Amino acid sequence: MLNVQLLLTGNELMSGDIVDSNSVFMAQSLKEMGIEVSKKVTVGDDLTLLVDQIAKLSSDAHVLIINGGLGPTVDDLTAQALAAASGLELAEHPEALAQLQAWCDKRHYPLTEPNRKQAILPIGCDIIANPIGSAPGFSLVLNKCLVFCTPGVPREMKQMVIESILPQIKTLMPDDMSNKTHKLKVFGIGESGLQKIINEKISDWPKHIDLGFRASQPLLEVKLTAHYATHHQDLEHWTDRVKSILSQHIVCEGEGDLSTTLVDILKSEGKTLTTAESCTGGLIASSITSVPGSSAVFEAGFVTYSNRIKQQLLAVNENILATDGAVSEAVVWQMLSGALQVSGADVGVSVSGIAGPDGGSEEKPVGTVWLAWGSKDNIHTVELYFPGPRRFFQTYIANAALDLMRRFLLGYQETPRYIIERQRKR
Amino acid sequence: MLNVQLLLTGNELMSGDIVDSNSVFMAQSLKEMGIEVSKKVTVGDDLTLLVDQIAKLSSDAHVLIINGGLGPTVDDLTAQALAAASGLELAEHPEALAQLQAWCDKRHYPLTEPNRKQAILPIGCDIIANPIGSAPGFSLVLNKCLVFCTPGVPREMKQMVIESILPQIKTLMPDDMSNKTHKLKVFGIGESGLQKIINEKISDWPKHIDLGFRASQPLLEVKLTAHYATHHQDLEHWTDRVKSILSQHIVCEGEGDLSTTLVDILKSEGKTLTTAESCTGGLIASSITSVPGSSAVFEAGFVTYSNRIKQQLLAVNENILATDGAVSEAVVWQMLSGALQVSGADVGVSVSGIAGPDGGSEEKPVGTVWLAWGSKDNIHTVELYFPGPRRFFQTYIANAALDLMRRFLLGYQETPRYIIERQRKR
Repeated sequence: MLNVQLLLTGNELMSGDIVDSNSVFMAQSLKEMGIEVSKKVTVGDDLTLLVDQIAKLSSDAHVLIINGGLGPTVDDLTAQALAAASGLELAEHPEALAQLQAWCDKRHYPLTEPNRKQAILPIGCDIIANPIGSAPGFSLVLNKCLVFCTPGVPREMKQMVIESILPQIKTLMPDDMSNKTHKLKVFGIGESGLQKIINEKISDWPKHIDLGFRASQPLLEVKLTAHYATHHQDLEHWTDRVKSILSQHIVCEGEGDLSTTLVDILKSEGKTLTTAESCTGGLIASSITSVPGSSAVFEAGFVTYSNRIKQQLLAVNENILATDGAVSEAVVWQMLSGALQVSGADVGVSVSGIAGPDGGSEEKPVGTVWLAWGSKDNIHTVELYFPGPRRFFQTYIANAALDLMRRFLLGYQETPRYIIERQRKR
Repeated sequence: MLNVQLLLTGNELMSGDIVDSNSVFMAQSLKEMGIEVSKKVTVGDDLTLLVDQIAKLSSDAHVLIINGGLGPTVDDLTAQALAAASGLELAEHPEALAQLQAWCDKRHYPLTEPNRKQAILPIGCDIIANPIGSAPGFSLVLNKCLVFCTPGVPREMKQMVIESILPQIKTLMPDDMSNKTHKLKVFGIGESGLQKIINEKISDWPKHIDLGFRASQPLLEVKLTAHYATHHQDLEHWTDRVKSILSQHIVCEGEGDLSTTLVDILKSEGKTLTTAESCTGGLIASSITSVPGSSAVFEAGFVTYSNRIKQQLLAVNENILATDGAVSEAVVWQMLSGALQVSGADVGVSVSGIAGPDGGSEEKPVGTVWLAWGSKDNIHTVELYFPGPRRFFQTYIANAALDLMRRFLLGYQETPRYIIERQRKR
């Protein structure tokens, strides 16, 4: 197996001022090709440390990807360090200079001295095109290791990795290796619960199909991967089996989330949605309107935080508020009914609960919430109990509301697992 | 200066399945003590690699913090690797076992074999208490380097670092070192803009006070740090100077954001707020209601996405919608006026804009937005132009609305920088 290692450089990575997401992207992209990164080293902008690490890592790995330190300032030391580690001189690289010049010309910028520094590279290195930024990448072979140098700007790095580096790495791999991945997203089941369901239903999981889970809060991503072309057909078969087992839990395949799925369903059914929110305070409306094109299915949302406003805007009954309290089945029923009436929407969701940290009681502790969903003549309700930090509670409940609406529109009859697990028992 | 290095272990860190936030926490905590981490190495759960890295890093550093690999499963190899690198035997550690036993007793769990494995440690190591999890930490001296082993669970690691490890590291530092930090958060100025303002106003910045910036989207955190007790008084002086320069830009000191600041101001003034949102789709209401106790100042929010609903709920004039369009000064003025009327709130904000990717025109391109803010008799409006991805636009505009309301309530007269920079020129 190919030994690939990463060297990340930048003072901001050492100080904790930024989270390293570049190496996460590289590791994920390589994993989808069937390659595990074996080691990752991070150092600040320090020439001695960089030279030392380039020498060590290149002696050990087949491929070394260096990220960062290609910019125009004196802190950017990668070219210098790679030259020193390789015993090469630095010189202005004609191809790199031409790329920089073209980049500046396109933007009507003058080519400044600091920019020009980005073309001073180890003699004999190969240039990696950077179509969207000024710093060219470059590569050379050191200690029989193929060393790639990439910029720290995430979108520039990503484009270089996808367009130039992964294809080059692929040529080093056995011919019959060819990765294919299917992703499914589910809501309301944890990793261990999901693994248990799959284990119960499938006892003969094949070794040549990788099954992985990744939290993509509040969803969970299920990933199936085959690493060889000869297994691609099998991948389809096992993906279908997993899909038939997870069935109504599946929110979407590939990219997306509950909001994008819900907007798609509403569009295809030609229906409009409204929201009446108390404890989620606009989060459901905000999730839906984060989707491009949501204006076709969403006209009105109500954030009715106080009892007075619930009465005034949504015609919730004053006596019921007094007897049952704002967090009650009757109130979410009336909130939804009122919102459907006022907005004229076809379907809707409403929520009222105690997000905390204050406002709980013995009978209705923090984490208690009532939800209603459906259409004018078909309103469903449920009470859930989901104690947790305020924002965590709000996010989970907003997503539960979206999921209940998704299941309603698709005519699903199965009771979701989170209702079974989170329903309040009295 | 103390040379501190980090070794992180876990297959999930190598696969890209999780983002490494543990080392960010450690680096930040150490930096606040005046220590820069010089190197950070990440490897999977591989014994050979771990032993090799422990030997190398401990030969080079004064302090090595290892994170991960303390759990009960066969993948957890840190104790074994440290023993091998140190030439020590492994044995059941009585103090570690007692801690594990106490942890299980408290939860009425039986002490299982996998749990018991967590007490098998290199002979002679010191135990680091873990008050909130099962895995004890431990430390020993190898190659004159103080090696700490910490659990991968973030909250357990954090507690151990704060309560046990940082105090021990502090004893290795010069006596007069004592860190003190002040943090300020600003909205609507970038790092380079902020640096420029400070450079222009302060030419004699002292070397013994560190000035740092950290993006905390959409805010920017300004951090001033003094590393010696003798400089603490100076820190107050320079913090005051920065505060007087940044003045109305400062959203809060220490922790917090625009929503928490705004809720605090509204509470102290005994005022209530309402929101009327089109393009931000509930994001402003959702930001405010994410703050505990916001129900005291927020009763009603309106998400009026369609023209029909703007007319129906907020009494926006049909003719004005037809002549000026939904994204216009007259419409946000009427949206706010209507929302104040219907909700009875003292103050409010309204927004209407083109979030994209579709819906733009030559006259009103994607990124065009009108905002209104104020009270019934004192409504202000502005048009901004902020092109960018949909969610980015929505987040920025929601925060601009919160900031304009903050400035309004505090009676600030200065025009915010983002209005000067982002105002549409016709």
